[in-house]
Amino acid sequence: MKHPENNKKYKGLTVNAGVENLPSVNPYATFKRKKRTLEAEDYIRGIRSGDISILGQAVTLVESSLPADQEIAQRVIEKCLPYAGNSIRVGVTGVPGAGKSTFIEALGTELCKAGKHLAVLAIDPSSERSKGSILGDKTRMNELSTQANAFIRPSPSAGSLGGVARKTRETIVLCEAAGFDTILVETVGVGQSETAAHSMVDYFLLLQVTGTGDELQGIKRGIMEMADGIAINKCDGNNIERARAARVSFKNALMLFPPSASGWTPDTMCCSSIDHSGVMDVWKNIEKYIDFTKKNGYFMHHRTEQAKYWMYETINAALLNGFYQHPQMEELIAKAEQKVLNNELSSFIAAKELLDAYNKNKK
Amino acid sequence: MKHPENNKKYKGLTVNAGVENLPSVNPYATFKRKKRTLEAEDYIRGIRSGDISILGQAVTLVESSLPADQEIAQRVIEKCLPYAGNSIRVGVTGVPGAGKSTFIEALGTELCKAGKHLAVLAIDPSSERSKGSILGDKTRMNELSTQANAFIRPSPSAGSLGGVARKTRETIVLCEAAGFDTILVETVGVGQSETAAHSMVDYFLLLQVTGTGDELQGIKRGIMEMADGIAINKCDGNNIERARAARVSFKNALMLFPPSASGWTPDTMCCSSIDHSGVMDVWKNIEKYIDFTKKNGYFMHHRTEQAKYWMYETINAALLNGFYQHPQMEELIAKAEQKVLNNELSSFIAAKELLDAYNKNKK
Repeated sequence: MKHPENNKKYKGLTVNAGVENLPSVNPYATFKRKKRTLEAEDYIRGIRSGDISILGQAVTLVESSLPADQEIAQRVIEKCLPYAGNSIRVGVTGVPGAGKSTFIEALGTELCKAGKHLAVLAIDPSSERSKGSILGDKTRMNELSTQANAFIRPSPSAGSLGGVARKTRETIVLCEAAGFDTILVETVGVGQSETAAHSMVDYFLLLQVTGTGDELQGIKRGIMEMADGIAINKCDGNNIERARAARVSFKNALMLFPPSASGWTPDTMCCSSIDHSGVMDVWKNIEKYIDFTKKNGYFMHHRTEQAKYWMYETINAALLNGFYQHPQMEELIAKAEQKVLNNELSSFIAAKELLDAYNKNKK
Repeated sequence: MKHPENNKKYKGLTVNAGVENLPSVNPYATFKRKKRTLEAEDYIRGIRSGDISILGQAVTLVESSLPADQEIAQRVIEKCLPYAGNSIRVGVTGVPGAGKSTFIEALGTELCKAGKHLAVLAIDPSSERSKGSILGDKTRMNELSTQANAFIRPSPSAGSLGGVARKTRETIVLCEAAGFDTILVETVGVGQSETAAHSMVDYFLLLQVTGTGDELQGIKRGIMEMADGIAINKCDGNNIERARAARVSFKNALMLFPPSASGWTPDTMCCSSIDHSGVMDVWKNIEKYIDFTKKNGYFMHHRTEQAKYWMYETINAALLNGFYQHPQMEELIAKAEQKVLNNELSSFIAAKELLDAYNKNKK
């Protein structure tokens, strides 16, 4: 399998839109990079002052696969790290149709009204292809997107799940440094993205709806085992009775699982994204969980385990990107692949030759 | 998650057992490596002459994580490559209890009697932990292991699935160079190992039994989509009726899947590993598939796609192993991990520091 990071399109970066109020940069720089660019310090200052426009541009840098952008992005992340970590991070998953967007819209609006600073991020490796990506269309979150305290960012659209997840993880750092105290990470509900989201959130919420005929589908995928809470959405109108019945089914199903490492017993709740009933009860459950796990030590334990995971993830991504994004390698890789496909070269020798070329080029 | 390759125990290598008939090596070499060792040329000569003892020792080299061993192993593989490829490679999977070992024993014995040279390999990343590993106990294949034409090798026991699978893939090269024309790769039937096996075989056989209550479990795991054929095992004694009924169920279930890329329609068969009935019919189905896909071009297309996959797999493994197995890195990695776990260092900075140290050490 081709390393997916290598499939990315070269992405230009537009950072000069809406930055009139920032220190002007050397206009001659435009001859070099075509677009005026901010320095790492400008991003850091903007982020620390809570400037959402600068934050958005910094996230664009994080998502860029251009080495020059990545260099600035990594410097910005490093400087933001001391200010990161002070938020509640919640993963929200559910099958398509479970109403994730409307739920996040409802919960997010309530949280913003209660004074929270909310960042909504997403992990959806398929978003480039499917277009119908989660959070891809902010207009689906009409009310929330008008809240001054909210920052909504669609999923990074390019690359492997690991790459997409890493960018989302790094974006959390920037958002926290910008003062966001509540982070929601939405995922697509198809398995692997959940594992990725689970590696960066404190609480994992599974959204379910009734009447789709796949109420218990989450179980098959191993997602239910990850859930710290299950919310039965669309508990409104004619659906209330069914939603309540589903809640009981899920409650019973949850009992079949072994106790979780956190010592927490997942709750099942009913809510409606339409009339907002029960939505803040879900949030109270999240706060109860945070309180519970902070007291028994699991909260910090879990976060340090996640940090360990991200240390290795970052190393692995850097090692692979160093190879696949090396300017001299792209053509060599393509040629070698073609020879392998033409049966002119064995896979093992092709790999060896490419690695030799890489080690020589690097010096 | 720690890179799993890094978890391997340092493994000494014993290659001097049973090699009395080989050219003697410099006895002074024992002062350097403690054990006498063969040169790459000795392995290659032994393998090409069909010496199963040397083949076994070469496979041990392939499985070793010791850099010096890997260097010889890679040279041996490279020299064997021109003689590789002339075999039928078959993956055999099934849930525990499906009777994989007894089926392979039955089929393998028949094939050996028919003059085939059969190598039986395995992919089971859990084998080190579980001990009850597939092919771990050759005595389960009493009859087959006495056949002169058979080479049975348990799963490489250490490391990640990717690492284990790569070693099995490389072992196929050695076996083919040693003259084995039929390769069976057994896997544990738990999902990911199947994908790995699928990346190295021509035909993928799913073994099923009745009466376990999970006849259709393969479907859930996406394994059935991979199968080029399904054999209902244990079709003997009181079980014949049930096995035949199960065959119909599977036949119907298979119709629900979209046509495969090979253009082949998977068959369902019944067989008994006890009385060997139907076992050679399974083999005939495999030969029919090979014939069919060679004619329509899929056979070679599939093999070159696999070669491409292994080119990238080999590159990725080399890039990661270069880091995790670097002699100067082990201690640094352990220290950094500890600091991350103690919250003294962020994951991103720890990764950066380790990568900087690695790039400095390499020069």
